[in-house]
Amino acid sequence: MNEVLHDHSSGGHSRWGRDDQLGAGNLLTPERRLSALRSIQTGALYDLSHEISPKAPFLMPNQTPFLQSIWASWRDSIRRRRAAGATNDAGSNVERVEMTMHVGTHIDALGHFSIGGKLYNGLNANDVVTDWGLERLGIEHMPPMISRGVLLDVSGLDGGAFLEPGRVVGPDDLARAADAAGVAIQAGDIVLIRTGWGRFFGVDNSRYLQGEPGIDVPAARWLTSRDVVAIGCDNMAVEVLPNPDRGIAMPVHQHVLVEAGVHLIENLALDELARDRIASFCFILLAAKFKGATGCPVRPIALV
Amino acid sequence: MNEVLHDHSSGGHSRWGRDDQLGAGNLLTPERRLSALRSIQTGALYDLSHEISPKAPFLMPNQTPFLQSIWASWRDSIRRRRAAGATNDAGSNVERVEMTMHVGTHIDALGHFSIGGKLYNGLNANDVVTDWGLERLGIEHMPPMISRGVLLDVSGLDGGAFLEPGRVVGPDDLARAADAAGVAIQAGDIVLIRTGWGRFFGVDNSRYLQGEPGIDVPAARWLTSRDVVAIGCDNMAVEVLPNPDRGIAMPVHQHVLVEAGVHLIENLALDELARDRIASFCFILLAAKFKGATGCPVRPIALV
Amino acid sequence: MNEVLHDHSSGGHSRWGRDDQLGAGNLLTPERRLSALRSIQTGALYDLSHEISPKAPFLMPNQTPFLQSIWASWRDSIRRRRAAGATNDAGSNVERVEMTMHVGTHIDALGHFSIGGKLYNGLNANDVVTDWGLERLGIEHMPPMISRGVLLDVSGLDGGAFLEPGRVVGPDDLARAADAAGVAIQAGDIVLIRTGWGRFFGVDNSRYLQGEPGIDVPAARWLTSRDVVAIGCDNMAVEVLPNPDRGIAMPVHQHVLVEAGVHLIENLALDELARDRIASFCFILLAAKFKGATGCPVRPIALV
Amino acid sequence: MNEVLHDHSSGGHSRWGRDDQLGAGNLLTPERRLSALRSIQTGALYDLSHEISPKAPFLMPNQTPFLQSIWASWRDSIRRRRAAGATNDAGSNVERVEMTMHVGTHIDALGHFSIGGKLYNGLNANDVVTDWGLERLGIEHMPPMISRGVLLDVSGLDGGAFLEPGRVVGPDDLARAADAAGVAIQAGDIVLIRTGWGRFFGVDNSRYLQGEPGIDVPAARWLTSRDVVAIGCDNMAVEVLPNPDRGIAMPVHQHVLVEAGVHLIENLALDELARDRIASFCFILLAAKFKGATGCPVRPIALV
Repeated sequence: MNEVLHDHSSGGHSRWGRDDQLGAGNLLTPERRLSALRSIQTGALYDLSHEISPKAPFLMPNQTPFLQSIWASWRDSIRRRRAAGATNDAGSNVERVEMTMHVGTHIDALGHFSIGGKLYNGLNANDVVTDWGLERLGIEHMPPMISRGVLLDVSGLDGGAFLEPGRVVGPDDLARAADAAGVAIQAGDIVLIRTGWGRFFGVDNSRYLQGEPGIDVPAARWLTSRDVVAIGCDNMAVEVLPNPDRGIAMPVHQHVLVEAGVHLIENLALDELARDRIASFCFILLAAKFKGATGCPVRPIALV
Repeated sequence: MNEVLHDHSSGGHSRWGRDDQLGAGNLLTPERRLSALRSIQTGALYDLSHEISPKAPFLMPNQTPFLQSIWASWRDSIRRRRAAGATNDAGSNVERVEMTMHVGTHIDALGHFSIGGKLYNGLNANDVVTDWGLERLGIEHMPPMISRGVLLDVSGLDGGAFLEPGRVVGPDDLARAADAAGVAIQAGDIVLIRTGWGRFFGVDNSRYLQGEPGIDVPAARWLTSRDVVAIGCDNMAVEVLPNPDRGIAMPVHQHVLVEAGVHLIENLALDELARDRIASFCFILLAAKFKGATGCPVRPIALV
Repeated sequence: MNEVLHDHSSGGHSRWGRDDQLGAGNLLTPERRLSALRSIQTGALYDLSHEISPKAPFLMPNQTPFLQSIWASWRDSIRRRRAAGATNDAGSNVERVEMTMHVGTHIDALGHFSIGGKLYNGLNANDVVTDWGLERLGIEHMPPMISRGVLLDVSGLDGGAFLEPGRVVGPDDLARAADAAGVAIQAGDIVLIRTGWGRFFGVDNSRYLQGEPGIDVPAARWLTSRDVVAIGCDNMAVEVLPNPDRGIAMPVHQHVLVEAGVHLIENLALDELARDRIASFCFILLAAKFKGATGCPVRPIALV
Repeated sequence: MNEVLHDHSSGGHSRWGRDDQLGAGNLLTPERRLSALRSIQTGALYDLSHEISPKAPFLMPNQTPFLQSIWASWRDSIRRRRAAGATNDAGSNVERVEMTMHVGTHIDALGHFSIGGKLYNGLNANDVVTDWGLERLGIEHMPPMISRGVLLDVSGLDGGAFLEPGRVVGPDDLARAADAAGVAIQAGDIVLIRTGWGRFFGVDNSRYLQGEPGIDVPAARWLTSRDVVAIGCDNMAVEVLPNPDRGIAMPVHQHVLVEAGVHLIENLALDELARDRIASFCFILLAAKFKGATGCPVRPIALV
């Protein structure tokens, strides 16, 4: 365990080398993968994602609406194929979608955030971020994620079914949740934090977006120092919003993605996992390789 | 094994019932999942997908270009956050994407195709296909796909490294490829067919799109009658293009999706699997749950 | 003057013939154009449009957000041109826009609305409305509109500066406003109705969209029977919303576009014209010829 | 007449002042407008634009495809309104469009181009060009354009019906064309140059885009020094492509937009005007006020 993965202020580079684009993805070793797969007992599967639709919440202005409409319909494609000589009625339905990659349950690429003009591994945003996406650190570089997942359920910390917006989840909260669940965070883990806030996703978006309970920087450091691969949560941003220090914007994103090279997974659906008191599991997340994208909507699962 | 899953002409319904939206997805049982997972020996992982970018080939007019551009940049998001009171320089990079769900390596939802006005399970396209997508049979209904995968490599059938456009891969070809690999197709399998055509994906798109080698309807029936869950291929459409009978458009899509309720997986990257002569494996495909979408770009993997 | 331009119920066709796609656009004769142009005295110009931006109000779900982002920036286009051999720094800025044609100040094409499955001139929507737009009656058919414009200012009818949502502007209201202004509606006129509601456009969109004052069907008939070419208003829909008969949706659109073949112009900015008490003027509106589009954002002007 | 409107190299500002965003648009005085309007004799109208559709040519990568599809159809909008309580069948047809503002016949905003990091009037591109468009110099600042138009037909210079790609139209060519037509360029004119290349627009796009005849910088200076408001042409870029000096990219754009503050109008349809040998006319162009946009598709007209 190392307290500082990456000393950004000194211009230092990632411990995985100057050319590294994987960050904590380097910890996704075949051994950890096999270990996680071998932990599966019953094959029971938990779907950790929400449906993605125009009802998915989004935080303007950096996020934008999800729009989907039918581009080619069975009616017209049959007509077009008939006109081209077909004697059968072959109808295609194909949509066109306009969206951000940060819609619904999704994972952030390492290049999603900067500290000033610097990205993960000391890369210059000026060089990397082009009109059409990321030249480096895009989501296509993230390996398939198969490793141990751990659920830290902090939803009941204040005595209710969920925490309130602005409620900081600190390192002690995480440590106690891990103890209560009987798990110790290990290198290579994907840690999923349940605040209970996910109940408002797509149900009461204005509430879901007005703020959220989440971790602060010390809690994030507590996790990244334990060499986790990713931190997920049942809210929009993993981190507490608004930040207790109103002058500091998105510090957890900055630490986790830029300094630590660790991924963030947002808008997770964790209720079923919590209901069945599943503390650790085989976690699988396979992001489509959109070249240069800053994230990807995904369908992560837990297997036990 | 049953020769006809679904007697469309008689107005019959799926053997999984009138309300079924899963089709062969019903065959994805926990037992088969566990069996596939338990087959994993070394944890070696094969990535079966191509990168998705504006260079991804598309078949106009039903398919459309993939466009990605940065919507929010680190530069401007820092400015906006500063203007809103932030004292740190927190830069976000977020793209906006315009695309069809049939871009790059992707899976087709059952509602992607019709036979005239009929969809899988006798559903009326007129009721199901709305302005904004599918009311039923959308990709969100497809379960996480974890089952045995089988590779049938037919690329060398004509003595070269790949088959030519218009080359029909028939049931006998598949049977011989299975025999050669020492595998027998079983219920619940995902069958991946390698024609060698994938070498032109994103490399020589005009060639990739001019036609393709692929299966015909008898070969498709040979597979669906064996109760496979999905048929994948290293080409655009799984099926041979142009069809030998020029008057019949996309008959394999019609049989597989509409009649059999079996998924199609297109634009797969199968070269590494073939290189290592992997005949069967644990196949995992997790499509993001885009509500009402007719497909989804994915990152399928093979584990051995 | 004819009371009924088009007897829809009898399956009759437009008085301009079975093949007509122009409707009242036929009334835009060179004589009327020249007459309007010759009425110009000082050349003073009034801009009758609002700016179009993401702040433009839209009525979901049929209307959708306006999104604009830079696709090619000076920074990257300079780099790309340098990489291609340029020795000068030629920067291009080009945006990509996602929008409906009914954004901001815009005109409706005749094919924008149907009565059941029928469009203007008895055309079948089933034939005309394809996946990608209108085969007939698209905005590209609308001639350049240069004719006499008339302002009917009814904003003060209830003693205030504007009318309230749901306030019906009836034929008598229009007749009195015309009398007060000293104008008589003539064939070929474009009639602009000012309710005062435009003050909330882009300023208080939730109010602007909650309903609006506007004309009812008798008022619309009063105008179409006088052979106007277009009816414009400083609100979203020209017609009163909600309709006094809650069971009838958008009847003015149905009468004006489908039955009468008359255009609607929405979200106009009419305050300056009213401030200067301009009752009649040379009106010019030039819609870009988007093929098959159901409308077009425009910049109409008045010249006096 | 002044030889240099704007001395860019010395850091000087526009002759219209430090805050000017109109450039030569300042020359659009009421006097010139009235003069142009009064020149109209018969009211005959020439439409100078092409239809805009997915078949419109575009120069990748800075320009992108035009895509239009029906977002709301009569079928579904009737259903939705019925479900909301309507007793009538009110069908709406509304498209969604994805496009650049430089599609089809269009005008360039002054902020469309830079010389390095400098825009018109010495503005810093770094400040002006944001994620979502131009903070200054956007098309919304362009006044309605009503002024004298002049047609310079150079299409027959080489003895054919059109000039070939790479053919430079120089200042002498323009001077002779003006003489032949009996017109002298005046301050406030909009000058339209016909090369004959427009015949390939939408007809043979690959040819249309392979290069084009057009003006060089001396010809552009010849025009801007005469205080024209805009220069239009029946090609993609007004200027000759490729540039005779292959190391210099788009120098006419740089001079005309950035140095001179003069607009460019592209993809014009000038054949009818030439057929009727119309040398001067009242030119009207009304660009919709898309805030911060770098251009706008338009429907310019000539009246005589």
